[in-house]
Amino acid sequence: MAAAQHADVRPRITTGPLTGSRKHYTVTASGLRVPSRRIELSNGDHLDVYDTSGPYTDPNATVDVHSGLPKVRNSWWEGKKHDTQLGWAKAGVVTPEMEFVAARERVDPEFVRAEVAAGRAVIPANRRHPETEPMVIGRNFLVKVNANLGNSAVWSSVEEEVEKMVWAIRWGADTVMDLSTGRHIHETREWILRNSPVPVGTVPIYQALEKVGGDPAKLSWEVYRDTVIEQCEQGVDYVTVHAGVLLRYVPLTARRITGIVSRGGSIMAAWCLAHHQESFLYTHFEELCEILRAYDVTFSLGDGLRPGSIADANDRAQFAELETLGELTRIARDHDVQVMVEGPGHVPMHKIKENVEREEELCGGAPFYTLGPLATDIAPAYDHITSAIGAAQIARYGTAMLCYVTPKEHLGLPDRDDVKTGVITYKIAAHAADLAKGHPYAQEWDDALSKARFEFRWNDQFNLSLDPDTARAFHDETLPAEPAKTAHFCSMCGPKFCSMRITQDVRAYAEKHGLTTVEAIDAGLRAKAKEFTETGGEIYLPVVDR
Amino acid sequence: MAAAQHADVRPRITTGPLTGSRKHYTVTASGLRVPSRRIELSNGDHLDVYDTSGPYTDPNATVDVHSGLPKVRNSWWEGKKHDTQLGWAKAGVVTPEMEFVAARERVDPEFVRAEVAAGRAVIPANRRHPETEPMVIGRNFLVKVNANLGNSAVWSSVEEEVEKMVWAIRWGADTVMDLSTGRHIHETREWILRNSPVPVGTVPIYQALEKVGGDPAKLSWEVYRDTVIEQCEQGVDYVTVHAGVLLRYVPLTARRITGIVSRGGSIMAAWCLAHHQESFLYTHFEELCEILRAYDVTFSLGDGLRPGSIADANDRAQFAELETLGELTRIARDHDVQVMVEGPGHVPMHKIKENVEREEELCGGAPFYTLGPLATDIAPAYDHITSAIGAAQIARYGTAMLCYVTPKEHLGLPDRDDVKTGVITYKIAAHAADLAKGHPYAQEWDDALSKARFEFRWNDQFNLSLDPDTARAFHDETLPAEPAKTAHFCSMCGPKFCSMRITQDVRAYAEKHGLTTVEAIDAGLRAKAKEFTETGGEIYLPVVDR
Repeated sequence: MAAAQHADVRPRITTGPLTGSRKHYTVTASGLRVPSRRIELSNGDHLDVYDTSGPYTDPNATVDVHSGLPKVRNSWWEGKKHDTQLGWAKAGVVTPEMEFVAARERVDPEFVRAEVAAGRAVIPANRRHPETEPMVIGRNFLVKVNANLGNSAVWSSVEEEVEKMVWAIRWGADTVMDLSTGRHIHETREWILRNSPVPVGTVPIYQALEKVGGDPAKLSWEVYRDTVIEQCEQGVDYVTVHAGVLLRYVPLTARRITGIVSRGGSIMAAWCLAHHQESFLYTHFEELCEILRAYDVTFSLGDGLRPGSIADANDRAQFAELETLGELTRIARDHDVQVMVEGPGHVPMHKIKENVEREEELCGGAPFYTLGPLATDIAPAYDHITSAIGAAQIARYGTAMLCYVTPKEHLGLPDRDDVKTGVITYKIAAHAADLAKGHPYAQEWDDALSKARFEFRWNDQFNLSLDPDTARAFHDETLPAEPAKTAHFCSMCGPKFCSMRITQDVRAYAEKHGLTTVEAIDAGLRAKAKEFTETGGEIYLPVVDR
Repeated sequence: MAAAQHADVRPRITTGPLTGSRKHYTVTASGLRVPSRRIELSNGDHLDVYDTSGPYTDPNATVDVHSGLPKVRNSWWEGKKHDTQLGWAKAGVVTPEMEFVAARERVDPEFVRAEVAAGRAVIPANRRHPETEPMVIGRNFLVKVNANLGNSAVWSSVEEEVEKMVWAIRWGADTVMDLSTGRHIHETREWILRNSPVPVGTVPIYQALEKVGGDPAKLSWEVYRDTVIEQCEQGVDYVTVHAGVLLRYVPLTARRITGIVSRGGSIMAAWCLAHHQESFLYTHFEELCEILRAYDVTFSLGDGLRPGSIADANDRAQFAELETLGELTRIARDHDVQVMVEGPGHVPMHKIKENVEREEELCGGAPFYTLGPLATDIAPAYDHITSAIGAAQIARYGTAMLCYVTPKEHLGLPDRDDVKTGVITYKIAAHAADLAKGHPYAQEWDDALSKARFEFRWNDQFNLSLDPDTARAFHDETLPAEPAKTAHFCSMCGPKFCSMRITQDVRAYAEKHGLTTVEAIDAGLRAKAKEFTETGGEIYLPVVDR
């Protein structure tokens, strides 16, 4: 249903490639088709970049949200014994999922297996979600981005619920979390799962709370367990479990400025206090492991006591919980269940690194999955930016996946534009971290764009940007004419002050005369100065009138 | 001319206080009136924050752009001998300007004097710009933000040119740079200076180039000198001088991906090559010092060879120029001329710190003034964000002033919204750095906002944010009704899932029963669990229907 082709009605599902890109597939040794996004350049080059958008950007794919995506992974496992990715990795087996992500990340499949076996990476891939294109989360891979969906309590239509997911992955979300509440929580999740090519995460305690009428005190292990099984059966790939909020930690939050800001954390704290019992998530953790193991669902151990303000960062409550998450990580791994660990929150810059170091040490290098962190509290309406500042840094130090924050954080529900802004802002943070970590392929993207900029290949510059449409629109506001796309200057400086234009002239002159080293210039430039003045007298070519 | 009061015409000059704030003055020991912005809170508290907006936000001030602002500083110096701030500082004298900035920064005036004397701080205050409210730039003070103005070649009216400046300082710009080109460059600058309460910087080479018809080869020391004198006479507070672009450095840029991206740098490189002479800015630097000294104009030593792409960061060309800037810093200081040093540009995160360390060492701790840096090249249209990521970090390491970047960077001319977005984004970066540096007063702002958030004082939360209007508008999109401003939850989670609401209940219960320590909860909680279940049975108060 490529509704985007019909201009007269608002398309329910956004399909078609990004401007200037086309879908490209690489076929692996065992025949798996691995997608990437190929950006074609006007100079004949191209750049292939990691592609999260699934079949929706492939004009040759048939999209029908009522049928769902093809269940590709089923054929990979036909007639084979089931185990978790961690189980296989420990046994020395490279799974098709590992082979697939190795091709996406351009690394050796054996490297993927070793990272998964060590618990330093996870491949969230419930075997009941065969529609996924597998991806890996770990500090030695590209930094990933999660987008939260499903904040609305009003269920509208299959198309609208699916579109939220499609829109987020179009701009680069590597996973989505369905945080829906309300009456249609099961149906909404079903349609997202059947149409999602990326892993889907949930927080099962939300649905469990709905089942008991919204009163945390009425929660029980049995209600929670049944909810988790229901979600695993549907195909959820990872679940946030706030099993580290222990009874004895609750008073540690009493003197905080913002107490407990995690929804799951506050629900469990209320339960613990009401019953004066240890959290059932903690006391039943091994049973939970066995459930998740049966489906290969990945734990995302929630940080229920994360700081909600600069003042509360890195306090005893936060790190006490992290110690417990470390203990739970070991238990889960013993059950061959994959684990990642969630992190803050609100943290000033000088306290960010300690979060990563502690998590790594306490949780044996399990992938860290952080929300921001926000580097200051004073800018509601701009918290995608306050948090991108923190996110880029925490990812640089080793965080494997970043949960996005939109401009509406703390204030309201994100709309379509907010989701796009949030995802792109977090792609920036993730990519900046990839660069700083020295990822072998990260800089080729920056180099391709900067080369296009320097050579005044405007269309290439737009198409290479994370958001080609907005880049082009901003340029067209000032210089709308098509000839301006090949102009050798831009609207900021005009032809007279264009540093890149002058530099190109300088460089052309220097290269023509072999003046590309300090020695050469010292040896020969004086003699040629006069010639430069003559030949370079008109170094500004007024391509268009001002 | 408080035109904002007339709703029927678009106001030319934006006046009146920010929502929820009012102008507050503190009077110093010698009677100087120092402004701050007082945010009044609904609980009877208030927060005073640094205020850059000048008389425009004071309803009691008369604004007439044709008369200009009162020349307050003239009375401070009436009948006294003139010297530069650096000259006085070295002589052990605390000037009125030092006293003024000490009050703004809440430090001892003697500390300001010592920092200026050591060259670690500058107070850009041309004695022919007596309209300024003095401010200080240095690593041991609040991080400052500069906004660039005057990109338009079309001169419109006094009001429109002044309004650009007024708008930028309203949102927090600490200085503005007038980068105007075109025919009305002198008049535009005149009106900005006469109406600006913040220091104004320029790049004199731009006007000099206009005077010679746009051909760098036709520039000369004489044309440049006369231009600088003209600008000093008008009252410009600091000037960017690209005196470190030496002839022998030009070939170092030949193999860069983006060559020379500084306008001033490329102009001087072209001049050097055309004449095969050393830059006249370098060879005449001592004469330039004497001119600036006569007015107490501050040097901003330009980084003409700054990297314009990730690939070019921290290369030999960049650091070679920085060495020369260090040499020039020493010369200027010997002439009692204040100096700051400009920095990049485009730098990946892992190479940021080295920039600050080298600048500090080579330039004897002179205030560093950086443009971003952008932490990646791949997001044109979002370069306020790519650069805020870098700016927050470089400021944390010691950069004293950040030059803002707007969303239009690399693409077009910023409009009014872009200027606001750029300034606020950079206030975030600057404040995040103040926090990370442990500035003694920075965190009280975050704490005040987070307390308001936790206590559901919505209006206080809006008014305490950097952009109260947008914060309020975002909230109202989802929960527009006025009662929602006092609701004990927000639109993201609704009453049932509100972690802060649950936490407040938990906290109230714990405090009532003395359960605020781990020991207390271990000792007494079990006995009280039943009571909590009873009294806390209805912990959700449905303030409004969902």
